[in-house]
Amino acid sequence: MNDTYKVDARRLQAAVAQILIGKGVPAEDAAVVADSLVDADLTNVQSHGVQRVKFYTNGIDKGGMNPVCDLQPLTDSASCASYDAQCALGIVAAYKAMKIAIEKARETGIGLVTVRNSNHCSRVAYFIRMATEQNMLGIACSNAPKSMPPWGSREKYFGTNPFALGAPTHGDPVIVDMATSVVARGKIILADKKGASIPEGWAIDVDGNPTTDAAKALEGCVLPFGGAKGSGIALMVDVFSGILAGAAFGGHIGNPFAHPENCMNCGHALMAVDITRFQDLEEFKDKMEQFRTEIKGLKRANGVNEILLPGENSSNNRRKNLANGIDLPVAVYGELEELSRELQLPFDIRLEA
Amino acid sequence: MNDTYKVDARRLQAAVAQILIGKGVPAEDAAVVADSLVDADLTNVQSHGVQRVKFYTNGIDKGGMNPVCDLQPLTDSASCASYDAQCALGIVAAYKAMKIAIEKARETGIGLVTVRNSNHCSRVAYFIRMATEQNMLGIACSNAPKSMPPWGSREKYFGTNPFALGAPTHGDPVIVDMATSVVARGKIILADKKGASIPEGWAIDVDGNPTTDAAKALEGCVLPFGGAKGSGIALMVDVFSGILAGAAFGGHIGNPFAHPENCMNCGHALMAVDITRFQDLEEFKDKMEQFRTEIKGLKRANGVNEILLPGENSSNNRRKNLANGIDLPVAVYGELEELSRELQLPFDIRLEA
Repeated sequence: MNDTYKVDARRLQAAVAQILIGKGVPAEDAAVVADSLVDADLTNVQSHGVQRVKFYTNGIDKGGMNPVCDLQPLTDSASCASYDAQCALGIVAAYKAMKIAIEKARETGIGLVTVRNSNHCSRVAYFIRMATEQNMLGIACSNAPKSMPPWGSREKYFGTNPFALGAPTHGDPVIVDMATSVVARGKIILADKKGASIPEGWAIDVDGNPTTDAAKALEGCVLPFGGAKGSGIALMVDVFSGILAGAAFGGHIGNPFAHPENCMNCGHALMAVDITRFQDLEEFKDKMEQFRTEIKGLKRANGVNEILLPGENSSNNRRKNLANGIDLPVAVYGELEELSRELQLPFDIRLEA
Repeated sequence: MNDTYKVDARRLQAAVAQILIGKGVPAEDAAVVADSLVDADLTNVQSHGVQRVKFYTNGIDKGGMNPVCDLQPLTDSASCASYDAQCALGIVAAYKAMKIAIEKARETGIGLVTVRNSNHCSRVAYFIRMATEQNMLGIACSNAPKSMPPWGSREKYFGTNPFALGAPTHGDPVIVDMATSVVARGKIILADKKGASIPEGWAIDVDGNPTTDAAKALEGCVLPFGGAKGSGIALMVDVFSGILAGAAFGGHIGNPFAHPENCMNCGHALMAVDITRFQDLEEFKDKMEQFRTEIKGLKRANGVNEILLPGENSSNNRRKNLANGIDLPVAVYGELEELSRELQLPFDIRLEA
């Protein structure tokens, strides 16, 4: 099978940034988007990786996504603020919001910043790392276009509404990052692109029947994880990132695939917590290391070679792929190559075979 | 079947408060504990109801639980504070912490208060209602004695680590409240008391085999909900309520059944968010009502008569049971009657048959 090319992460990132700059995104913001997407590929979460570039440039071309992110302040107080993203790229809007949340956390101990009129922000774990790199705890969530039925219903209304939480350690941060669906919608999109089937239990079709057909699943509903519990969490993600933010919520978030000419008006909520307001930072990190060591040392379940903490797999993959290169699907490579050609940009990202 | 007595909620609450006062709990704090426990029974969450009274009085008698809650301040800043509960009853410690979080939220928009050296705080949703009654969003979590294996392990290390989030509306609050286990440990304790079996998938026995025997499940492990996702959430609950709070975490939390003479040293984290720092309160509540109406109006899944929002069932049960009385298991009635007799208190809580 030769359906991927080995590409260099840093050159891929530069190429993606150049494409975005070519579409009118300021260089500093383009670097953030490229970093977020390439980081997803580095951690083998390809569903949120550079396969999204075409989706973003299409949004910019059609008008639903504003290449310039000028956050308009709506409210501001000691620990809180809310902004109107004016239809910016969601990654940039959420990045800027988390920077403000971190500043507020330095002042009062916590910052919570919401954003409305935003677009798809890809992987929320990206913003958590901003907090953990500043020795803070991070919490982030975003609502998303309807794809999932609330518990008790067979009609889609909630998005996959991802959220993430993270904490720093002496080494790699511990980051819990999940969609509130059984699986991220991006994984079904990727399966559909590849023409692959999906496991049973991930989704129901438009009539409410279980399906393993990725295309039918995209027409139907992804299911919440953990039944009523995942559904309840998806609801609260919508309360924080949708209703509190003053963004659209539930079934009202725009579908950027059907209508790339419209802003999604999804919302994000970003929180940072200054650990030193509670205890000594070194002591906190020592305990996180003890926590990690103890968990990894527990008796393993059958068939498990190593107990992994949340985020550990991502950190390991990042190191490996930074050194060895990213396996980029040929189809995605082709999309980026075409975009570069259109914009008359050089495109040289493959490693020697 | 006549294994329950119909009792009056307010008389039950008064009786429980008097028992606690008899054990040295100040009247104001006893009222809080009684209110929390009876509220659980009112909402048909008997696992966290007055069946816990004997457990608390035993903790006080044996010395692990301090009947007096004098929160010692450890750190204090604009939006944050941490306290040492000095082995108080967890309900009282968490109640006082949430009151402080609400005060801080009034000042800065958010308050996050942690508590260490605490004991079992029963249902975390109780503290959320304190926030929603003040027109704030609430978040609360607590760690708990080990009963659940981290993902990839067959050895218990995490507690069932419950958390809850809630938002006010024009009517009943929307409250998401869950243990990070498939099921609350209290439900297995209750099944064991009744001699009932438990459904498959709830727990594994001490050797790692699936079991439907409640007693064996209590020796073994309750499983996390949603697999790796629930396990990750349990871990982050431990980070916030255990490690950040400076309480015990993971497998180090004391087991109050095996050692009622020791403080559990579990921890709690309580957060309140002032909605008005983000938008107009009436507008927020209007949108919550729209959210509720839309969700309830979706196409129902097969066999579902009504789509319920998180907390809706509790609110409905509370109204019904306040009017009609609580069905209290005879065994629990007997425990309370005996405690009242020991303390030479009147005990008259049954409604006419």
